[in-house]
Amino acid sequence: MKAVRLHKYHEWPTVDEIPEPTITGSHDVIVRIGGAGVCRTDVHIWEGQWAPKTGIELPYTIGHENAGWVHEIGSEVTNVSVGDAVICHPHTTCGLCKPCRDGQDMHCYQATFPGIDTDGGWADLLKTHARSVVPLPQGVEPADVAAHADAGLTAYHATKKAALSGKLLPGELAVVIGVGGLGHIGLQVLKEMTGVEIAVIDISEEALRLAEAYGADHLLQGDGTEVDRVLQLTDGLGAAVVFDYLGEKGALQRAFDMTRRNGDHYIIGYGENIDVPAIDVISTERSFIGNLVGTYNDLAELMELAKRGKVDLHTQKFSLDEAVDAMQELHHENLPGRGILVP
Amino acid sequence: MKAVRLHKYHEWPTVDEIPEPTITGSHDVIVRIGGAGVCRTDVHIWEGQWAPKTGIELPYTIGHENAGWVHEIGSEVTNVSVGDAVICHPHTTCGLCKPCRDGQDMHCYQATFPGIDTDGGWADLLKTHARSVVPLPQGVEPADVAAHADAGLTAYHATKKAALSGKLLPGELAVVIGVGGLGHIGLQVLKEMTGVEIAVIDISEEALRLAEAYGADHLLQGDGTEVDRVLQLTDGLGAAVVFDYLGEKGALQRAFDMTRRNGDHYIIGYGENIDVPAIDVISTERSFIGNLVGTYNDLAELMELAKRGKVDLHTQKFSLDEAVDAMQELHHENLPGRGILVP
Amino acid sequence: MKAVRLHKYHEWPTVDEIPEPTITGSHDVIVRIGGAGVCRTDVHIWEGQWAPKTGIELPYTIGHENAGWVHEIGSEVTNVSVGDAVICHPHTTCGLCKPCRDGQDMHCYQATFPGIDTDGGWADLLKTHARSVVPLPQGVEPADVAAHADAGLTAYHATKKAALSGKLLPGELAVVIGVGGLGHIGLQVLKEMTGVEIAVIDISEEALRLAEAYGADHLLQGDGTEVDRVLQLTDGLGAAVVFDYLGEKGALQRAFDMTRRNGDHYIIGYGENIDVPAIDVISTERSFIGNLVGTYNDLAELMELAKRGKVDLHTQKFSLDEAVDAMQELHHENLPGRGILVP
Amino acid sequence: MKAVRLHKYHEWPTVDEIPEPTITGSHDVIVRIGGAGVCRTDVHIWEGQWAPKTGIELPYTIGHENAGWVHEIGSEVTNVSVGDAVICHPHTTCGLCKPCRDGQDMHCYQATFPGIDTDGGWADLLKTHARSVVPLPQGVEPADVAAHADAGLTAYHATKKAALSGKLLPGELAVVIGVGGLGHIGLQVLKEMTGVEIAVIDISEEALRLAEAYGADHLLQGDGTEVDRVLQLTDGLGAAVVFDYLGEKGALQRAFDMTRRNGDHYIIGYGENIDVPAIDVISTERSFIGNLVGTYNDLAELMELAKRGKVDLHTQKFSLDEAVDAMQELHHENLPGRGILVP
Repeated sequence: MKAVRLHKYHEWPTVDEIPEPTITGSHDVIVRIGGAGVCRTDVHIWEGQWAPKTGIELPYTIGHENAGWVHEIGSEVTNVSVGDAVICHPHTTCGLCKPCRDGQDMHCYQATFPGIDTDGGWADLLKTHARSVVPLPQGVEPADVAAHADAGLTAYHATKKAALSGKLLPGELAVVIGVGGLGHIGLQVLKEMTGVEIAVIDISEEALRLAEAYGADHLLQGDGTEVDRVLQLTDGLGAAVVFDYLGEKGALQRAFDMTRRNGDHYIIGYGENIDVPAIDVISTERSFIGNLVGTYNDLAELMELAKRGKVDLHTQKFSLDEAVDAMQELHHENLPGRGILVP
Repeated sequence: MKAVRLHKYHEWPTVDEIPEPTITGSHDVIVRIGGAGVCRTDVHIWEGQWAPKTGIELPYTIGHENAGWVHEIGSEVTNVSVGDAVICHPHTTCGLCKPCRDGQDMHCYQATFPGIDTDGGWADLLKTHARSVVPLPQGVEPADVAAHADAGLTAYHATKKAALSGKLLPGELAVVIGVGGLGHIGLQVLKEMTGVEIAVIDISEEALRLAEAYGADHLLQGDGTEVDRVLQLTDGLGAAVVFDYLGEKGALQRAFDMTRRNGDHYIIGYGENIDVPAIDVISTERSFIGNLVGTYNDLAELMELAKRGKVDLHTQKFSLDEAVDAMQELHHENLPGRGILVP
Repeated sequence: MKAVRLHKYHEWPTVDEIPEPTITGSHDVIVRIGGAGVCRTDVHIWEGQWAPKTGIELPYTIGHENAGWVHEIGSEVTNVSVGDAVICHPHTTCGLCKPCRDGQDMHCYQATFPGIDTDGGWADLLKTHARSVVPLPQGVEPADVAAHADAGLTAYHATKKAALSGKLLPGELAVVIGVGGLGHIGLQVLKEMTGVEIAVIDISEEALRLAEAYGADHLLQGDGTEVDRVLQLTDGLGAAVVFDYLGEKGALQRAFDMTRRNGDHYIIGYGENIDVPAIDVISTERSFIGNLVGTYNDLAELMELAKRGKVDLHTQKFSLDEAVDAMQELHHENLPGRGILVP
Repeated sequence: MKAVRLHKYHEWPTVDEIPEPTITGSHDVIVRIGGAGVCRTDVHIWEGQWAPKTGIELPYTIGHENAGWVHEIGSEVTNVSVGDAVICHPHTTCGLCKPCRDGQDMHCYQATFPGIDTDGGWADLLKTHARSVVPLPQGVEPADVAAHADAGLTAYHATKKAALSGKLLPGELAVVIGVGGLGHIGLQVLKEMTGVEIAVIDISEEALRLAEAYGADHLLQGDGTEVDRVLQLTDGLGAAVVFDYLGEKGALQRAFDMTRRNGDHYIIGYGENIDVPAIDVISTERSFIGNLVGTYNDLAELMELAKRGKVDLHTQKFSLDEAVDAMQELHHENLPGRGILVP
């Protein structure tokens, strides 16, 4: 089969012909890829940033946002049948460890992360596990939702956590910093699942227009005055929850500064340090909340929203042969929306 | 001032001229009524149903859904000023007892309930307390929201509690039984604050059409087949949460029968008994959740939704002199929407 | 191997020689029984009460509270090794359905219940599944904890749910009705996991003495005056949470009557109906909370408490050949503590 | 009356004769001081650290941990009577703002903080408010519990928040860093309200012995190896919750490093910065949780624990005339236990 393989860091991957994966475990599932997302992390992999963390031996197949149709199943798989349309949870999980038993899939002690530390989905076929395939609702096409497997899931998980925290009630303000690949999903989920008022911050006028179309109540240009403007919108109190999808360029400090007493700063984007005096945290009872991808059921819930047209996803399709083009366009910031490889 | 006074049970109240209330406590607030709801409870009061519970001495002024403008304040009131538009939380509360200190106003040990156990708001002026007046957001008119003071608040409180329980996630079904005075508010709040799929049940075609306009996903005629139809909609599993705004005519049994394992049956309407074998509760881990009005902050949150046009309220206005007409129309089921007395 | 088999309802089971179970699935686990609890449900099975629910074909092996040592494992089992001491979660679960993915094992769509609807543990060997075996902490003996597999787990689950609800804080009163097989575990867990004040109710003086030894603050003879006495202990307010381990002989009504406004009545025992006017529920915001066994992680947590000596369990040991003796003694109320079969 | 007054920063306060406070508001309460804690914050005030924050005009009376007996009440006070023993919540609160209405007293928009930004309790009499006095249970003496008003309340609040978070279950490890004035209370509360296993870290052998007496499971010398030792105790996973009562001397970094994936680092002590890469937060989903004093009901709950002998408090009594001696001993680290001024 065809697969986009990374042979050496800093050299573009090539499209190779490799053997098809085979079923070896009772719960293995092989998915025929219908769409695989092109993500900034793929560029970081190419740059070698992930090498020390994963130690994966090259060459291997990248691609960690995968959806398609079930191609072959292990002898004990009961939740999907050959031909079913599915999206893949980004991790494979054991179902036996304590976090798995609590539904916290992303904290599985035995997880693998296809496309990151094992062969991924920029290929005709992907080998994964029965516990990682979420059946798609009727009418949802794999290529249309593949990018939800990681980007959408992360935004959904953080937003749901905040929604259930009781801090996003009518009369409060939530702020979404960065209406990009994750933030534009988070914004839509926030709108759907809470009655909170929403301000968005972005430096791009186009992103703000998109946020407006999604129903954001306040559009704030990311021009350095945003802390003051959030305080003005809230009688000087600050926002109940700030979703920080940026995590760099000073966003961490600004996000904290615009969070109200007893409010929460959700860390999603990354790049810089949280660096605040502990006294500022305890004198106002503010918290920093970490977030990591999401659970299997989170992804299933997000697919329900997708089915009902509640989470719009901007995509641009490429063939496997165009994978490097897609990476380069992303690398040079020329790719509006998410690139999706369609084998 | 003018006030609608009940002199004898089973005799219609009369519009009397009585002395204006006066400030006697440091936190007293006198409200000039801008609108006062006509509620089925007012008919039940006239019928004497509440007499044994309240023991109130006749005559007295009825009216427990009140909104208007601050007319006079006690010497230590700081949260409102004369002229402010306000809606009245249905209870006066002490602010000192344990439930008050937890924000559970409706469980205050010292509460009074104007219109039920003390003089109410079918009058030019109402005497209440600083802790009971919720300032209205800019642009919200007292007469337009008065019915939220009890009916809307109850629906909001129950729906918010369910929303924060984590059971109303995308992919689950919630059922609203009865799209009447409370249910039509509950439905809108449910739509605004959760991403759950919603089925409504009513015997009135008009109510179902209204529910459709509010975005209900499934409209079920209350024809005795509704349990089966909810099971069909959920692959035989049942609904995650059932909001029972009816509480009579067999609804309690049907609501329980359509609730899924580990699901919750919210009791809001009343009239009949919950009567189920304990084994049916424990073998499926279903719960019955009681609900009572709501907190002060619940009402403030609901007003935020009203400001943003998220909770439509059907009203029909009457003068104080027409109060008995309004009661009679309600009594004879001729009053579509909520009647509002405007002095 | 030896197994205690039920051949006909109302006839005592016999100890038969039957073939040993064999591994057929990749995640199968065969456990050599170290102890198997004798539970009132076993008597109910013999009486035929469960026949219509399970439809199981006779003969079969009973016993649903099982612990022992891993005897053989399927090819893909990674969480236990041959020789490990384990306790068996009462259900086998799929790990793939929505409740399993949320950690709600007891609501698994594919669950089996060994000893109830398939062969159980009154035998030398039990066939179960990797997802159902909880490794025992160092120093915990299977025969000593087997009864926790169902009885203890149920009490733990209900108590933990209440502890996390925020209603069991210092200054509140919790009531435990029935200090029997489940209740005496629930009481110890309540003592360990909350700072609430505790009253227990039982008709047996011996049970009350046991409760005293476990640290109960108030011992109430179940003589018909217990509602009044709970109200006296709480300034007329009632208990924040009532754990009803009885569920019959009027306990359901009394438990509800002694629950405070905004309090919860936990249904655990069964036998009679919940039968209360909906108006009594809504006018006080009381709830009835259903409870069913517990999760896999609940059982693992309970084993941690057992390891640390926090949950005392009264047991009396019998050989497999004495199984019918144990059943008869239980049937005639002559069995103090839990009977444990040790093959 | 006598009062300990600060006239100039860096000069020791003097005991002056000043006029008694008088009732001016309807809900004022004057408390005859039975005991007033001597806290490190009092030393920081003397050093002028709080001057820029409070801007209070000198001279004024310090003392923010106060308990005593009600001496005089305003005309509308109903929750206490003259002669009642009370402990004072550290803030006065309005009861009207949004946080007050949610029970979040310490976030009141109108709060004052007697002893910090207005006259405090190192005096014969203290003027406070009906909403700030918690009646003491029978048998609890003001001088014995005064230090709970701030130190104990802070430890209780943080521990209760963690207990209700569901992360402190049997089988998990909680770590208490610093068994000092706050930590020794937090440890006892943790022991009483959860079933978690507990490790404590302190540099003082005496503090570790005290922790042992309170039932801590693991005593770790604060010698720089504590991160490794916590990882060893948890199979390399880390602690579910770390209570950081130190907040300086590198504790913030070590506390974070010993927190497990999906675990929480509670910030209570302060002095240095939280300074961690956002990627470390998001790749493990760890959170930093801010904590600030506690609510009125928190303090009432803590007094229930005090009544039942669950929270031991080491105190040493001084007269008002010895106030400076107490401050100096604290300043020179010669004061074991909490100093309490008894007028």
